[in-house]
Amino acid sequence: MAVYAVIMAGGAGTRFWPASRAERPKQLLPLAGDPDEVLLAATVRRLAPLIPAARVAIATGARLLDATARALPEVPRENLLAEPIPRNTAPCIGWATATIARRDPDAVIAVLPSDHFIGDEEAFRATVARAIESARDGRITTIGILPTRPDTGYGYIEVGRALGGGAYAVERFVEKPGRELAEEYVGGGRHVWNAGMFFFRASAMLAAIDAHLPALATGLRALDAAAARGEEAAALADVFPTLPAISIDHGVMEKARDLAVVKGDFGWNDVGSWESAWELAPKDAHGNALPSGAIAVDAHGNLVRDMTAGSARKVIALVGVDDLVVVETDDALLVMPRGRAQDVRAVVDALKARGDTGRI
Amino acid sequence: MAVYAVIMAGGAGTRFWPASRAERPKQLLPLAGDPDEVLLAATVRRLAPLIPAARVAIATGARLLDATARALPEVPRENLLAEPIPRNTAPCIGWATATIARRDPDAVIAVLPSDHFIGDEEAFRATVARAIESARDGRITTIGILPTRPDTGYGYIEVGRALGGGAYAVERFVEKPGRELAEEYVGGGRHVWNAGMFFFRASAMLAAIDAHLPALATGLRALDAAAARGEEAAALADVFPTLPAISIDHGVMEKARDLAVVKGDFGWNDVGSWESAWELAPKDAHGNALPSGAIAVDAHGNLVRDMTAGSARKVIALVGVDDLVVVETDDALLVMPRGRAQDVRAVVDALKARGDTGRI
Repeated sequence: MAVYAVIMAGGAGTRFWPASRAERPKQLLPLAGDPDEVLLAATVRRLAPLIPAARVAIATGARLLDATARALPEVPRENLLAEPIPRNTAPCIGWATATIARRDPDAVIAVLPSDHFIGDEEAFRATVARAIESARDGRITTIGILPTRPDTGYGYIEVGRALGGGAYAVERFVEKPGRELAEEYVGGGRHVWNAGMFFFRASAMLAAIDAHLPALATGLRALDAAAARGEEAAALADVFPTLPAISIDHGVMEKARDLAVVKGDFGWNDVGSWESAWELAPKDAHGNALPSGAIAVDAHGNLVRDMTAGSARKVIALVGVDDLVVVETDDALLVMPRGRAQDVRAVVDALKARGDTGRI
Repeated sequence: MAVYAVIMAGGAGTRFWPASRAERPKQLLPLAGDPDEVLLAATVRRLAPLIPAARVAIATGARLLDATARALPEVPRENLLAEPIPRNTAPCIGWATATIARRDPDAVIAVLPSDHFIGDEEAFRATVARAIESARDGRITTIGILPTRPDTGYGYIEVGRALGGGAYAVERFVEKPGRELAEEYVGGGRHVWNAGMFFFRASAMLAAIDAHLPALATGLRALDAAAARGEEAAALADVFPTLPAISIDHGVMEKARDLAVVKGDFGWNDVGSWESAWELAPKDAHGNALPSGAIAVDAHGNLVRDMTAGSARKVIALVGVDDLVVVETDDALLVMPRGRAQDVRAVVDALKARGDTGRI
């Protein structure tokens, strides 16, 4: 049973404006780790010792296809799956699974997000290897991140009995909890974060979709039939928009039985905002993450990112400011406190309202 | 007795970095009032109803000559006096006075800074007219600004008895006082700010220089003699660097007798820092002075200046920040609290220390 990966790289996302744009979303930006490596490329690279690029499929949007191919020269172009329009993760995973299953009905598949940061890559691969073993045994398996704080921004997984090989039964998937419940989860020690990583035999996932998302199953069968006639591209444009726009969590995981979870502790961060980017960036003695050549006078805890094209960088000077995010691109400049990182959406909304779609 | 003006436009100044540079100092920037008019041009324009451009001399540095000429197309090129090197205001005023006196020994001269803002131009001209009348009577006359706060950054003038025509005798010039003394001055009602504006018959100033700055007087006579031989340019390069580098205040005003002062109240501001630029700028309902197209979300009291060349401006977005100065130029970006405006020098020092003279 060969192992394949499906990297979900269709995200848009406005939380990293002005660096992120519709045609240059988060996964195509170097937001954490190596400043010369975009998150998507890091995802493929860190997986390579387990799953070579030839068996890595990238699920992305049609409008991101070229940029995605440029970011991943080692992935064969035919492995790039372009969704005609975004329909959430269930159709994405369903279509990718069906596509791989046509080539290799015995495939075991690892589904991974494209835009997360992982601090300890060895530990990550060891965890993934355990999850793959669990998936080979027939169980749809997920990785649960050991929670480090009562975060209300993630879904949680309640961990049940040990299944051997480092896997545990999943008691249930729970949606993003309120503060109190999140504290209970973290204190109780039985819950882990749902990081959106899934491992399964192709046949197991297709069976689960049959059982819990029949509309998706019907669509996937239509695509299979079209592919057999050599007409998949045309069928995709017709069928994909009709698939139910639902997440794999809601559509399958929360309903399926006999799921497994492998616990993970490898410096995971979903790089959710400029605040996270600051947390993950190398910093000077005053907590500033600055581009080379920047000048900071009595300034502390700032994140400065110069994402302009070209080699002639501006000198960026901070005097007497603390905990700011300053991001410069070729057509925009953002200044805000790190603590307001979520509010960058308000800027995108303002640009939308004035019809400045070129900058969002 | 025709009236001439000498505009002192040799200033360098680092307080408006990154907008100001060695070759583009404060007076050549549109820092207050009309955003399309540099301070020097405003100085000449507001004087024009009293003193036409043909009788306005501009004292500047050799390296600023071309930029100064471009800023003042209405001033004849031969009226631009280029100092080979900066030697403070006494040599500047002495040389300009001697030069004008050669053409017109009966000249009355108004000496004005080139980089101040004046809110009420009518009131300014009325005050200048009174100072000119006082100067015609033979007294070296200055304008004293009615103080609005106990500022320790200005010299003060103690006002004596009335001389008629709105002029008063000067009791004495006093240097920048400490806080306590400044409060006493403002509370006492007998002190005004020295704004560096001087009015005199050419003959009166040359006599005062003879009396109080003999080294300067000797140099000026050498220049006169050279000019009579048609060799002023060569003599200037030799003589100017030997003149005593002293201010007109220290060198003449604090020593001379029989000085007059005319009180002025015309919205004067010396535009001393980015903080002053914010004070003088038109602001929105939240106290922000922003370029058109900027986006401010829950932001208050900020000054944003986009001084990049070219027409394709960046969108500058502020989220949740208050009282900041954000200045963007083609090769630099500055972010600091308005209250730290004086500390911009530290950035210039840092650039100097790393040898980045192109940006200072």
